[in-house]
Amino acid sequence: MDYLQQTFTVQFQYKVYFTSHLFTSTNPVFRSFLLDNEQEGVVKKILFVVDKEVTRFHPMLKEQIVEYINTIPSYKLATIITISGGEEAKNNEEYFFKVINAVNRFGIDRHSLVVGIGGGSVLDMTGYASAIAHRGIKHVRIPTTVLSQNDSGVGVKNGVNYLGKKNFLGTFAPPVAVFNDFHFLTTLSERDWRSGIAEAVKVALIKDADFFCWLEENAAGMIAGDKDAMQYQIRRCAELHLQHIAKGDPFEIHSARPLDFGHWCAHKLEQLSDFTIRHGEAVAIGIALDCAYSYLTGRLDEVPLKRILNLLQELGFKLIHPLIEMDTTQHLLLQGLTDFQEHLGGRLSITLLNDIGEGEEVHEMNSDCIVAASHWLQDYCITAQRQTA
Amino acid sequence: MDYLQQTFTVQFQYKVYFTSHLFTSTNPVFRSFLLDNEQEGVVKKILFVVDKEVTRFHPMLKEQIVEYINTIPSYKLATIITISGGEEAKNNEEYFFKVINAVNRFGIDRHSLVVGIGGGSVLDMTGYASAIAHRGIKHVRIPTTVLSQNDSGVGVKNGVNYLGKKNFLGTFAPPVAVFNDFHFLTTLSERDWRSGIAEAVKVALIKDADFFCWLEENAAGMIAGDKDAMQYQIRRCAELHLQHIAKGDPFEIHSARPLDFGHWCAHKLEQLSDFTIRHGEAVAIGIALDCAYSYLTGRLDEVPLKRILNLLQELGFKLIHPLIEMDTTQHLLLQGLTDFQEHLGGRLSITLLNDIGEGEEVHEMNSDCIVAASHWLQDYCITAQRQTA
Repeated sequence: MDYLQQTFTVQFQYKVYFTSHLFTSTNPVFRSFLLDNEQEGVVKKILFVVDKEVTRFHPMLKEQIVEYINTIPSYKLATIITISGGEEAKNNEEYFFKVINAVNRFGIDRHSLVVGIGGGSVLDMTGYASAIAHRGIKHVRIPTTVLSQNDSGVGVKNGVNYLGKKNFLGTFAPPVAVFNDFHFLTTLSERDWRSGIAEAVKVALIKDADFFCWLEENAAGMIAGDKDAMQYQIRRCAELHLQHIAKGDPFEIHSARPLDFGHWCAHKLEQLSDFTIRHGEAVAIGIALDCAYSYLTGRLDEVPLKRILNLLQELGFKLIHPLIEMDTTQHLLLQGLTDFQEHLGGRLSITLLNDIGEGEEVHEMNSDCIVAASHWLQDYCITAQRQTA
Repeated sequence: MDYLQQTFTVQFQYKVYFTSHLFTSTNPVFRSFLLDNEQEGVVKKILFVVDKEVTRFHPMLKEQIVEYINTIPSYKLATIITISGGEEAKNNEEYFFKVINAVNRFGIDRHSLVVGIGGGSVLDMTGYASAIAHRGIKHVRIPTTVLSQNDSGVGVKNGVNYLGKKNFLGTFAPPVAVFNDFHFLTTLSERDWRSGIAEAVKVALIKDADFFCWLEENAAGMIAGDKDAMQYQIRRCAELHLQHIAKGDPFEIHSARPLDFGHWCAHKLEQLSDFTIRHGEAVAIGIALDCAYSYLTGRLDEVPLKRILNLLQELGFKLIHPLIEMDTTQHLLLQGLTDFQEHLGGRLSITLLNDIGEGEEVHEMNSDCIVAASHWLQDYCITAQRQTA
């Protein structure tokens, strides 16, 4: 057989910065990043795409950005676009085209930067538009929620929803930098402040038993608003996420996705609830369900199971929801398993739990056992509620 | 400054096969590739996207594909889509959505294959649709023209045109395999058989003086239909292209693009002629113009210059065109330099020629010299024509 073999590797590098008040004139972090990426004889353009919700709580942000960028002669602010946040940013193609058309109108090229500021959905859509315009414009992520700062915002995925399917269109495209600005978190609702911690529980359960213990010790503090604890949680969760990407299969060429622990159920719950359930809230339920399943199938002991459920409850998560309680809707939830397999293709790959800090990949789940796990979880929550009352 | 450093590498591998009559039942090449990529317990789906022009000259191709795939139990043919070839495939978004919607309708997932069969435009569009559906479905390329077999078809770029701009949307996404089926070339028009050789001249000029000599010796043979010579030319050109990608900057994170020698002018000529000039024909003119420029600016000697122009003419290329002859259109052509810079951004990066086999990157070109080079080229061609007559 006559052939030529092609083999090459591409290296990707980026820093995830931790700071506060990023665009205050005295904060050197963003300026220093820009100056490190200057190019002789070129004034680079920057296009900002900002979540409307963020500008509502930070009304001076746009002015701050204009002033900040104006002090750096080797860069030029092209424009600042604002778009709706939440799933709407990924559902409505109007926002995607708003970014693409701005790239065209302002002559944003491959040496320019597109900077997204917002929650995970705004960053996913902005990252996608940047990744495919001119075959890839460098993009910077400034996540503004706990969930995006500790999880998706520091990773390499982007995408939009299409034909009613989550992330149907997207790519793997590492950002050139991520800036986790803690100040944005201080204006989150109590619900959003809390819900992102579910991803920390997830990554601790499959990768780091010590971090799980830390979460147990600091759950009450974080819920009460302890900023230092919250910052540590975000940093450690982001770090575990980055390590997982670097050591694993960054562009998911193979099937296993341990970071999707609890997510087959979570994705379906979000969709069935029309995104009234937050991603973190759905992940908490998904973790609880897969832990109950791991317990009922003899994989996980009762003691760690109860520690996990207690931690999730202490973090304020409800572990049951009408959509997984009712027998009539259970078949809809089970469809989540099929959807999850279809998105990836090939064999089903699900992570279950053997112990805290120890996940294991399996290739099938029993439907009757999933239903039994949801019943068990319901009974557990009702009993716990009675004991508290 | 508090930050986490993320660094990882991703390895990409694919084979470029050389064969003939790929889907004849006795040809083991495609079957062997599929069997090497089987997955236990999974029947993988294959979606074919075929250039209409190819099916016109190979009316039995679809039946052959159906029969060929039917003999392999671990794969299932999803469907065969046919689409218009040429620039239309990249200009009209209807074709892009035809692929995306088939991916949805037939449940094509990340373990499935999308196989494009056709000229460079069909492969570019199909590769793009595959690259962004489900964040990347594995795609296979079967280029059917000299130009796509020796150049773009074996590379890592894809894209579509948008807002009237060539490749405005696209990605870098290596195929999982390329099959250069020589039989497809035997039904090409004389014009298409010849025009793709321009890319071989280009790559020889900047990378391989020996290959340039080989082209000089075999030009007449190739034009007369010598299949062995044509096959050698394609293989060597593909090999130099693959080496360049692997040793260089595969995803073009930096500015230099030596393989774009002669292309700033070629892209503009194609656009100004509304794609009535073939890409290869435009590249031949682009090479001639940049060689004349290299000569007039003292970079290239007269002897190699004349060898280059003679080779291009022996290959049947016209080296001048009304669009670069007339003083009134020259400003339009010069706009090509600006377009070229804008697509990449940053400093202008153009390859000029010091000698046969030796390119050099420069960062500016003088407009008056470009005009002088086009006049010089016009005079040269008229004189050569007189001498022949």
